[in-house]
Amino acid sequence: MTVATVDGIEYLEKNRLLVEDLLRRFLPSEDAKPQSLHRAMRYSTLAGGKRLRPILALAAYQYCGGRPENAESTIYPAMAALEMVHTYSLIHDDLPCMDDDDLRRGIPTCHKKFGEATAVLAGDALHVVAFQLMAQTGSPQAVIELAEAIGTGGMLGGQVADVEAEGRPSNTEQEVEYIHTHKTGMLIRGSVRIGALLANADRETLDRLTAYGLKIGLAFQIIDDILDIEGDQRKLGKQVGSDTKNQKATYPGVIGMPASKEKASRLIDQALALVDTDDDNILKFLARFIGQREN
Amino acid sequence: MTVATVDGIEYLEKNRLLVEDLLRRFLPSEDAKPQSLHRAMRYSTLAGGKRLRPILALAAYQYCGGRPENAESTIYPAMAALEMVHTYSLIHDDLPCMDDDDLRRGIPTCHKKFGEATAVLAGDALHVVAFQLMAQTGSPQAVIELAEAIGTGGMLGGQVADVEAEGRPSNTEQEVEYIHTHKTGMLIRGSVRIGALLANADRETLDRLTAYGLKIGLAFQIIDDILDIEGDQRKLGKQVGSDTKNQKATYPGVIGMPASKEKASRLIDQALALVDTDDDNILKFLARFIGQREN
Repeated sequence: MTVATVDGIEYLEKNRLLVEDLLRRFLPSEDAKPQSLHRAMRYSTLAGGKRLRPILALAAYQYCGGRPENAESTIYPAMAALEMVHTYSLIHDDLPCMDDDDLRRGIPTCHKKFGEATAVLAGDALHVVAFQLMAQTGSPQAVIELAEAIGTGGMLGGQVADVEAEGRPSNTEQEVEYIHTHKTGMLIRGSVRIGALLANADRETLDRLTAYGLKIGLAFQIIDDILDIEGDQRKLGKQVGSDTKNQKATYPGVIGMPASKEKASRLIDQALALVDTDDDNILKFLARFIGQREN
Repeated sequence: MTVATVDGIEYLEKNRLLVEDLLRRFLPSEDAKPQSLHRAMRYSTLAGGKRLRPILALAAYQYCGGRPENAESTIYPAMAALEMVHTYSLIHDDLPCMDDDDLRRGIPTCHKKFGEATAVLAGDALHVVAFQLMAQTGSPQAVIELAEAIGTGGMLGGQVADVEAEGRPSNTEQEVEYIHTHKTGMLIRGSVRIGALLANADRETLDRLTAYGLKIGLAFQIIDDILDIEGDQRKLGKQVGSDTKNQKATYPGVIGMPASKEKASRLIDQALALVDTDDDNILKFLARFIGQREN
């Protein structure tokens, strides 16, 4: 998709609002029973954020020629599903038995606001709605892609490795790469793949976008590590320095700050080369955007 | 399906072993990374149990004429999925912030054995594998059924109501019925429906089996309440009296023991009438079995 006329920032803002609309529509209503759980689900999911995963899925769908008239029954529910699994993972990650975080996107975390039991169940419930929405695309393959992205071979594998690496005196680059590609990379890769699949992309394009997704996904998490040291707390909406405090395995911790920045920058360049199919397209813009993000 | 020649107990035992085999096969290996998580998933899922939900799904599949040669690609992964979501719900239900149980099926609960963080993630991971397996049946409708059975309009709705009703001085029969039909009934109903759907049951049969599933599901949970008071701790593999200790909303607590027994018995009779299509079939046996269970 050539978007020479579309400004990237405008695309991002327009589709962030689209994602907000989809989430409002697909999340269960606070008026329906069980109200307390629906309130917690909506609180955490509608607390803002860049909505990067659904926007990446949409951009991949468009890049692969997915038709606008099919969006409502395919990519739209998939977009909401991707943001909901992301939110579920954050809610469980923030729990006292996990990272024990009090603040997320500038407001109290789900368990701080609603209690631990409700936070566990709200995460579980978002997990269910996400799969329900993905099944509504009519594609069992999209459901399987989502499961692979967030299962023990994906996001959950990364979360476990992340917890287990905490406080370990000597993590290797290989270990940190495993954590980052799984914890963050696999869902970003999965978002791109699901968008491509729902547009019936050919095999060559799907493979290329898969590599693109993995590279921007790893870059995203390396930059997360960097921002936790050099970032602006106000822009981030969460406390900086938490990785150091929690003795997390990070790229700067293992290979140093200059090498981490260089690695992130190299990954973005490689990602750009993979989608260099025309002068300007949104996947290129999104790769650059991730490379330069400040929150 | 007429099974005049098949003894019900034999059917139950044969298929309990089939479920164990399927679970062993479909659960991720302890040799694969992340080993600690896979170990926790296998520990809780392979700890025994009646395997009632997958057996009900299989019985419904057979009752509706599902073909044995299609079982491997349809009902088998669905059976494993149903048992995995059941296990995930037990792991999260047992957590300190929920029911805080130390013992399940006669052995330490997942968080007692592996710690709280691993227990949260093991539940999440079983949740994912279950949806992955359900998608492997090739039926998006089966995935949606599963989501409806365990979402906020199903099991999770019941769990929230259960937690919220704890310690409340006056629960009504209506409230307890809501908790029981949702917390337990909806997944049992869903198991029967998924079996019927995967066998391409006609609408009339599907509706009839749906009603059957809801009735045995409610009876199952009422009998659970009864066994928590009158049951044999050794047979149950868990402590009795926990409902009273936790001030749970129960049928005996609200309508008394005799009326609870009568209600369970009436529900079983109604369920039997719904599947009274030939002299003897497994769905009839299973309804009677639930009515007489001691663990």
